[in-house]
Amino acid sequence: MRRVCFLLQVRPDRLDEYRARHAAVWPEMLDALRQTGWTNYSLFLRPDGLLIGYVEVADFQASLRAMQDHPVNARWQAQMSPFFERLSGSAADDSMQPLEEVFHLA
Amino acid sequence: MRRVCFLLQVRPDRLDEYRARHAAVWPEMLDALRQTGWTNYSLFLRPDGLLIGYVEVADFQASLRAMQDHPVNARWQAQMSPFFERLSGSAADDSMQPLEEVFHLA
Repeated sequence: MRRVCFLLQVRPDRLDEYRARHAAVWPEMLDALRQTGWTNYSLFLRPDGLLIGYVEVADFQASLRAMQDHPVNARWQAQMSPFFERLSGSAADDSMQPLEEVFHLA
Repeated sequence: MRRVCFLLQVRPDRLDEYRARHAAVWPEMLDALRQTGWTNYSLFLRPDGLLIGYVEVADFQASLRAMQDHPVNARWQAQMSPFFERLSGSAADDSMQPLEEVFHLA
């Protein structure tokens, strides 16, 4: 398993709605994530909207592509994209660049 | 277990040295972390020095305090504090404020 961390930026004026949506993610979206290999997946939010994703996955790019090809994700991302800054119309998954892991203690 | 994410800022001119130090953390520092309950602990570095910590821990504040009281940590933090920005002489652990977790998929 690889540990992956990525960052996104939520619009500061939409934080409450972003939180509410993620407290009630569609069951079919959760199933799609599970089916495509996302495990121990968390999202953390800083008060200014910086969003930190952490996920454990065998092959991040493969799991990302599998989600991008999943029909439920297209519907989810269409609803989510207005929440993000600096994505100029693209889906959040296009901006999920893994950061460098510099330390790990099991 | 609680999942905790926190942020720190490494000085951009010291990233290479920060990486090198964390590729060779002292064994007694790793033991101290284990003894005080830090598990699945990763540090991720953005190219501008933003440092993302992720750790799974039963009680984050208790584990943080236990590390702060650990003699090896005082020596480690004395070496590390010059690597961090905006800490005005304080140790990194003083700035490790947990972010809000807004989503989790096991």
